[in-house]
Amino acid sequence: MSDTPYTPPEVWTWDTESGGRFASINRPIAGPTHDKELPVGKHPLQLYSLATPNGVKVTVMLEELLALGHEGAEYDAWIINIGDGDQFGSGFVAANPNSKIPALMDHSGETPQRVFESGAILLYLAEKFGAFLPEDHAARTECLSWLFWQMGSAPYLGGGFGHFYAYAPEKWQYPIDRFAMETKRQLDVLDRELAERTYIAGDDYTIADMAIWAWYGQLVLGRLYSAGTFLDVESYKNVQRWAKAIDARPAVSRGRMVNRAFGELHTQLRERHDAGDFETRTQDKLEPAAE
Amino acid sequence: MSDTPYTPPEVWTWDTESGGRFASINRPIAGPTHDKELPVGKHPLQLYSLATPNGVKVTVMLEELLALGHEGAEYDAWIINIGDGDQFGSGFVAANPNSKIPALMDHSGETPQRVFESGAILLYLAEKFGAFLPEDHAARTECLSWLFWQMGSAPYLGGGFGHFYAYAPEKWQYPIDRFAMETKRQLDVLDRELAERTYIAGDDYTIADMAIWAWYGQLVLGRLYSAGTFLDVESYKNVQRWAKAIDARPAVSRGRMVNRAFGELHTQLRERHDAGDFETRTQDKLEPAAE
Repeated sequence: MSDTPYTPPEVWTWDTESGGRFASINRPIAGPTHDKELPVGKHPLQLYSLATPNGVKVTVMLEELLALGHEGAEYDAWIINIGDGDQFGSGFVAANPNSKIPALMDHSGETPQRVFESGAILLYLAEKFGAFLPEDHAARTECLSWLFWQMGSAPYLGGGFGHFYAYAPEKWQYPIDRFAMETKRQLDVLDRELAERTYIAGDDYTIADMAIWAWYGQLVLGRLYSAGTFLDVESYKNVQRWAKAIDARPAVSRGRMVNRAFGELHTQLRERHDAGDFETRTQDKLEPAAE
Repeated sequence: MSDTPYTPPEVWTWDTESGGRFASINRPIAGPTHDKELPVGKHPLQLYSLATPNGVKVTVMLEELLALGHEGAEYDAWIINIGDGDQFGSGFVAANPNSKIPALMDHSGETPQRVFESGAILLYLAEKFGAFLPEDHAARTECLSWLFWQMGSAPYLGGGFGHFYAYAPEKWQYPIDRFAMETKRQLDVLDRELAERTYIAGDDYTIADMAIWAWYGQLVLGRLYSAGTFLDVESYKNVQRWAKAIDARPAVSRGRMVNRAFGELHTQLRERHDAGDFETRTQDKLEPAAE
């Protein structure tokens, strides 16, 4: 952006040079770019994902369900490398026409069922297994308000703040200010709520916590965008308390490893097909990748 | 934004001068700014809202429920003037700690129940009345995937494209390009889906249509951000067909009028307390406001 006054054209056109770090994967059109079927493993639940915050929501939920003893939650997790354009393969687009991870296929019924959008997948699994969503009507309502809150709020953190603070080709003050302000407001919303409650929707750990933790929990733990100091995340004391409690759950540690293609090698379980994979994973096929 | 290189400070601080058109209502902290109770009318359902796309979703749903004969959906709709800071009143913050419209209070049970986030309110009402959410498991799942899609996608349209194209203090090419591209991709996602289906989740008109129509339907009808030509909205033929069909529904026309504080006076029903208000509304208290 420059001091040269910019007048938008009458009709926007696609300049394939623009877009910053993710220019190669951002497109103004939808649909598949190539034919590629999705692999299908042995379990009814087939997850196609990557360990970004939206992906981690679902792998944490599946690991929590397994930890509770829900054997039907066994799953195969296949990696979708968004930098390579895997999300534009015909099989993935059929599972999620929006070409974003995560996408879930449930083969347990007569016809495979697609579920897309991380919030919808969490709700689908919570209802399928009767877990992590309160049965009490008032508590369930509060849980769902917070689940939808996360879905509508995190784009300001990820697509707004994260993009302009960490990924855009240059640092520009206006969008960084705009989205830092909104991100801090959201953290304060959570902090005030968590001053009154153990978990975000009440006394119980629910899918709302899993959804919010994947973004805001990991943010205050300093894991997103190297922005902990900039956003003064230590000042949100109640969010810190809550984030650390969730981070200490074994199922959360496992969920964070699945479909992970960055960070230290011992934190990566690129594909997950069995509960034993966490112990026996071989790392000889893994290549280090930048976080 | 200027050619002067910008280096973000180590710790972000609140510059109350920044923020563009909505600087006065954007804050980095949450919570109430003043004490103000919410009014409560005669019906069990009390809506606190404004006729932005997120508000229209809910008033359309309530009017559709009433059109179906669900008398229990009678409601009072109170206006929340976000430009005046009504969303920071203590009563509103208790109903929605996120200080965004719409918020719903349901007084039909022993204890008033708050519901916030427009997607959560749509799901709450759909389940309460057993309407506009398919009972069939596969169709319900598809509907909820699209409902969550809307919640996670529209921030790129509203908080991204709309802000930088229409409201930011200057026009900057990079953010306009970034968010125009994403908005057009989202329109293409819908256009491809609506080539195969009457409504977004299948043969039936559901809460997913209401949610998506309020943003993307109104966008392709040229009602948002004066951006119809810029985004070439006429080219999305299937979205156009679907948007016009929904726009022709009487309940949608009524829903658009409720809590409307802009546009021509005859389109405004600032508060709604009875079905007869659409016919008998007095306009003598109304002041024109810019759209």
